Parts: sequence; C-alpha cells; structure tokens
Amino acid sequence: MRTVDLIVKKKNGEELTAAEIRYLIDGYVKGDIPDYQMSSLLMAICFRDLSPAERFYLTEAMLESGARIDLSGLGGFLVDKHSTGGVGDKTTLTLAPILAACGLKVAKMSGRGLGHTGGTLDKLESIPGFRIDLSQEEFLRQVRDISLAVAGQTAEVAVADKKLYALRDVTGTIDSIGLISSSIMSKKIASGADYILLDVKVGAGAFMKDLASARDLAAAMVDIGRRFGKKTAAVITDMSEPLGEAVGNALEVIEAVETLKGRGPEDFRNLCRHLAAELLVMTGKEADRAGALEAIDKVVASGAALKKFREMIIYQGGNPAVTDDYSLLPKARYRHVVTSPESGYVALVNALEIGRAAMRLGAGRKTKDDKIDLSVGITVKAKTGRKVEKGTPLAVIYANDDDFREVAEATQNAFVITKVKTKEKQLILDTVY
Amino acid sequence: MRTVDLIVKKKNGEELTAAEIRYLIDGYVKGDIPDYQMSSLLMAICFRDLSPAERFYLTEAMLESGARIDLSGLGGFLVDKHSTGGVGDKTTLTLAPILAACGLKVAKMSGRGLGHTGGTLDKLESIPGFRIDLSQEEFLRQVRDISLAVAGQTAEVAVADKKLYALRDVTGTIDSIGLISSSIMSKKIASGADYILLDVKVGAGAFMKDLASARDLAAAMVDIGRRFGKKTAAVITDMSEPLGEAVGNALEVIEAVETLKGRGPEDFRNLCRHLAAELLVMTGKEADRAGALEAIDKVVASGAALKKFREMIIYQGGNPAVTDDYSLLPKARYRHVVTSPESGYVALVNALEIGRAAMRLGAGRKTKDDKIDLSVGITVKAKTGRKVEKGTPLAVIYANDDDFREVAEATQNAFVITKVKTKEKQLILDTVY
Repeated sequence: MRTVDLIVKKKNGEELTAAEIRYLIDGYVKGDIPDYQMSSLLMAICFRDLSPAERFYLTEAMLESGARIDLSGLGGFLVDKHSTGGVGDKTTLTLAPILAACGLKVAKMSGRGLGHTGGTLDKLESIPGFRIDLSQEEFLRQVRDISLAVAGQTAEVAVADKKLYALRDVTGTIDSIGLISSSIMSKKIASGADYILLDVKVGAGAFMKDLASARDLAAAMVDIGRRFGKKTAAVITDMSEPLGEAVGNALEVIEAVETLKGRGPEDFRNLCRHLAAELLVMTGKEADRAGALEAIDKVVASGAALKKFREMIIYQGGNPAVTDDYSLLPKARYRHVVTSPESGYVALVNALEIGRAAMRLGAGRKTKDDKIDLSVGITVKAKTGRKVEKGTPLAVIYANDDDFREVAEATQNAFVITKVKTKEKQLILDTVY
Repeated sequence: MRTVDLIVKKKNGEELTAAEIRYLIDGYVKGDIPDYQMSSLLMAICFRDLSPAERFYLTEAMLESGARIDLSGLGGFLVDKHSTGGVGDKTTLTLAPILAACGLKVAKMSGRGLGHTGGTLDKLESIPGFRIDLSQEEFLRQVRDISLAVAGQTAEVAVADKKLYALRDVTGTIDSIGLISSSIMSKKIASGADYILLDVKVGAGAFMKDLASARDLAAAMVDIGRRFGKKTAAVITDMSEPLGEAVGNALEVIEAVETLKGRGPEDFRNLCRHLAAELLVMTGKEADRAGALEAIDKVVASGAALKKFREMIIYQGGNPAVTDDYSLLPKARYRHVVTSPESGYVALVNALEIGRAAMRLGAGRKTKDDKIDLSVGITVKAKTGRKVEKGTPLAVIYANDDDFREVAEATQNAFVITKVKTKEKQLILDTVY
C-alpha cells in the first residue's frame, strides 16, 4: 500500500477499505506517514466526506490507537453524555448529578475548553480543591461508591485522534462531518459507557451553523455508535443565543448549582430535564418520558441531586461548602451592568459575540497554553423574546481588568433589539435515534 | 495573515489576493510555512482550482523565488518550446536545430525525465561526451555564436516550484490545471524567451487524458504567458500512441537525426514541421504557414538543420560523428522482434503500455535517483491504421537483460488488432492562441 495512492483514491471519491484506513491511522501514529500526507488526505476528506462504513473504520482505528476504559465491573446503567460545545454550556455539572441521583451510573471523562469559555474540567476547577486528575483506580472506585465521577482522561484514549485533531486545527480541515463524528465517537466508545447521548449544538455560537448539518452530524454519530453496539441518540439544541444566563467558569458553576436547587434559568433547567429524561428512557430505567420527568423533578426537589454533586466534590477533594456559599468561588474584581440603548424586544443575543467577549475578559483560551481566569465572565439578563426599556439591564460583565469598555460595547452589540414583538428561542430542535 | 485562514479561504472557494499568494509562496520557500499546511492548501486547490488571476500571481511568486535568465543581450527572435511530455517525445532534438537554421534563436533549458523514458537531457547524454551542464556564460555565448543551446538549468529558476512539485508528487496533488500551468509557466518565463510555444499532449501516454482538460491547460498557460507580455501559443497533440517509432534514449536520438536528414517517421516529421511553422509565423519571421513550411523543408533538404545539430554537439563537447555512425551511440545487447499474433488492422498502440514496458527495460526512472540505461528501448513498427498479418513485426525490443519475456508480452498487449479497417491517428488536434 502506498499512502499517495490512497490519497488519490479518496480524492477521486472512492471508498477506502477497513485495511486501508487502518494502514493510514497506524502509520500516522507511528510516524511512518508524515503530517504533509495526512493533511492532504484530510483536505480531500473535507471535500469528499467519508461514507458511513469509512466513518466506522476510522472510529475503530482511532479507538484502537489508545486505551479503552473497562467499566464492565461496575454494573448498572452506565451512561455518557457529550455536547459538541457552545457558549454557557454547563450542562454536565447539573445533568450528571441528576442522573446519578436517578439511579444511573455516570463515569464521565471531560476535556478542557479551547474556545470561548472553559470546558467542564475548567469549570469544576473553580471549586477550591477540586481534583480533576483522578487515577483510573480512584475514578472507578468513585463510580462504584457514588455512581458519579467527572474527571480528566485517566488513560490516553484515541491517541490517533489527538494527533489528528492537532493537525486538523492548523490545516483548515476541521469541518467535515466524517472527521468530526469519528473523532467524538472514538473517544466516547473508548470511555466505556453503554448508553451515549449526544447534544449537538446548532447556531451562531456552535460549530454547526445550520440545522441540516447538525442533523447530518447527529445521524453520523448515532450510526457509528450503533455499529459499535452502543445505544446512542442525539438531541439537537439551539446555540444561537447562550445557554442559560452565565458565561464564564465560576459563574457557570453557580448557575449549575442553582439549577440543582430547582432554580436557575428556565431554558437551561429544561435542557437538563430533557436530556436526563432521554437517558432514563433509553436505559429503560423509566418506562416513558412522563415518568422520567417526574423522577427527575423528585431528585431535584428532595435535594438528592444536589447531594450527589456535593458527594462528588468531597470525593474529588473539593470544598462542598461552595454549594451554600458562592463567595468561596473565584470572584472578579469589577462588575459592570450593560443596559439597553433603546426600548423594544430582544430579537437575538448573539452567542458567538457573547462568547468572544467573555474570552476577551479571560474566560477562555485562544491557544492550548493560555491560562484561564476562572472568575470572569458575562451574565445575560435579557434573552430573546424579552421586552426591554431603554436602560433595562441586558447583561452583567465580571472583569478583573478595569479596562472593559470594549468588551462592554461588544456585549451590548451582541443584543439585537427590535420594535416588533419577538418570541423565545425554541431550545430543543430535534432528536435523532 | 494566518496560513490556516488562507487555507480555509481557498477551501471555501474564495479567490486569494496577490499579497496572500506571495505570503504563502515566500513563507513556504523560507520554511516558515510547513509542508503539512502547504499540502492541505494544494489539495484544496485541486478541488477548487485557481482563477486566472490566482494563476498569474502564483506564477509570479514562483518566478521571483528563483533566478531569471537574461537573454536580452542576445538580440533576434528568442523562442522556447515546451512539451507536457509523452512517450517517444524527442521533438526538441529535431525542432531546435530546425528553428536555429531558420534564423531563430533557441536558448533552451531542459529537464531530466521522471517517468517512462528519459527527458531531453538524458537523450542528449546518449551522445558520447555531450555536456548538458553548461555555465551561464557558456550557455549564452553558444546561443550568440550558433543560435542554439539545449542544456540543464544554468541557474536555479523557480525555486518554489521545485519544492512545491516534490511535495505535490507525494501528496496526490499533481492534477490541477492551476498548479500545472503555473509550474510550467514560471519556469518558461524565468528562462527568458520572448516567444513560447507549448505542446500539450493528450491521451493514454500523456498526463492529460482527454481533449477538454488538455484545452483547459493550454488556455491556462497561454493566458499566463500573455499576462507576462510573452507571445504564447499552445498546440494540442495526440499522445494515445507513441510519437514516432523510437521509445528509449539513444534510439530516439537516432530517430531525431534521421528526421533532420529528411527521413524519420511521418507523424514525428509532421509534428516538427508543424511546431516550427507555428514559431516562424508567431515571430513574424515568416509571413504565413506556407512560407514557413517551405523554409523548414529547405533547411532540412540542404542539410543546414543537421549542421546546426552537429554544431551544438561540438560546442557541448560531444562527438558529432554520431550523426553519421549510429554505432557510436550506446547499444543494447539483445534485440527481439515482437510480431502480430493475428491478422487485421492496428486499432491502438497504447502509449502508456509501451512507455511502461520501456521503463521496465531501464529506459526511464521510477524515482529521481534511478539510473537510466540509455541504450534500451522499444521501436514501434506498426502504428494505428496499419494492416498486419499474423507474424508481421509490431515492435522491436532492445534490451540488456536476456529476461525480457514479460516486456515482450506487455509490448504485444499494447497493440490492439481488429478485423475492421482502421485509420491513422490524427496527431495535431487543436491550437490555442
């Protein structure tokens, strides 16, 4: 097999075989195939995409390039949830304790964020003392004990994916349904859960900009999951405006805890309920959606979900008092209210603009090595559909640098105010099984 | 400017500016832009192609990455001819002396072959003592003295193109009209001639497999030439069967000399006359095609063209006696006649198959470092349209290894014999001005 012949084969729109894809991935991980051949292949894939079979082969080859987490000894319903990422997405923090409180097992390995705000791990690190670097043994013991652990990778899964992703990032070859779906699913399959729920975000603040491509990505991932014998579903949710109100690491922890207490913004609370209900029905733990929602509301109302979250904090070395006293979390020095320049209705809160503004405050990373400021961020006070007057607060900026004038301006510009009445955004757009 | 943004821009089908293309080429030559970014850009270009303006900018950037040969002091009509390459293409050897004998100036820098048979330089090296590595001074003096020099590059022209071509070769990014046309034209413009005639080969034995893409390539190159203020034209000629009869380095020198003597295969003789006439009319040296053909036939009949070839051999240190005594050229040990297995008409002599067979004998290079055997090759004895009986010679194999059975079989298989009468191939298919 010659690499250049396989590149040309893909370029010409022919389907690569399992053996050919394995040769390419193994060769790339070993260093036999240089970056410059892989990147031209990746670009050809961006134009030709991968067939369902090729996506499966690629996922398999990447899966086998790294460790696989064996959760089989843990018993029970092992579930995993993955979001394609968006602005203000703190879902794992709320959803995982709810699921554990409902009797499912959540052994979740998360990532750090590269983008507008931190990833789940960054957010958890806002909690003083919280350890995200558990050993495999600690991780598994914790899931056995309290049915819940959210940590960094305990072993190097999908090594090929990591190397490929770094290359894609600098060669303009990120946006391919085939490459994205295989990348995500190789890590999900490696993580060992039996039930996988995907949250595919769509809109300005998400990677997928339109519903059609979000549906394609969702279908691609569900298909791969099924080929591996995993029960997989995908929910497509709106990311044209930020999720909930808080954007920024410590701010999002507060919002997640508030939601565990039965408060929190309505859209975010509903998303958590919706996703939790999906998984409860998928696993057969609850017979139907009505029963599932009832169970979810019960663990929130009783405090069982919050208790799970506190247990996780304790197991992972953090201070559980933060759930009662938010002042224990990192706090920004400056607080600035952005107001509406006119009266009318909010027609759009541009998620991308809010995300970028938060990043400029220091809430996200531009490059892998950037240090995040966990305390800063933006809280959205008026979401789409809200009636506002001139001077009504639109958002609050939390900054550590007193020169936040440009960020304030950018934040205000993220709001589109119209004279005609507008409607709330529909959050849940579709489900793919 | 960020390289990855320019890759994405091209990937999305947008046009790159002159400054952007210069940034990419300069950065690549300097090593600031790594191979893996350039190869993904090249693959995007294969899918999106380059606009006429982008081709011009790319040619310009590559041109400026190396030396430019200054022929302005030589006076007269400085002409250059370039063939996109094919099987049995020894045109330069015959055409260049004819042009010089007709009063034009030919300062031609050629390449070595990478493919089925050697390049012009390899063929010339069949002549004992012939030097292809002239200094710039020697090269210019020779053109001034005898209006004719064919040598290797006297200075590194189009440095970027050399680096890019090596990358394209291993990343499946050869076949792009934009990249091919810019590559060829950057070297042609750098070589300094005022009149450029391109011979675009089309068919099984050529890079361009169909007439439409050959026309596209021809038009692209003519457009680039014109943008540089060079008088440029392109002739599209058939390469579905080998050109002339001889395929192999010394064998082709003999055929070229025979043609300078007014003999030689009819198709090859006609191509040389056609191309020479084009250039004589382009330069205005002759008023029309009829007058040009008359002048050409005169310098052949008088021996003036052959004399020019001998002068060139003498100037470049070779033994001019080879033109009278072919036994002074490298000679293969074995000679084997391939005969027709049946009676009928030759419907096809597959140029690609003949080229591959000749390469297996040692007439060509698989990789840059392969050594060529100048003596071996194949002579085609029955071209398309010929009536043959069972046992009629189809080709003669010249080999240095006595195990040429497979090559003989492959050579026989390159001939398609049918019962229905066939016609000669039309050699000259189109001209693009």
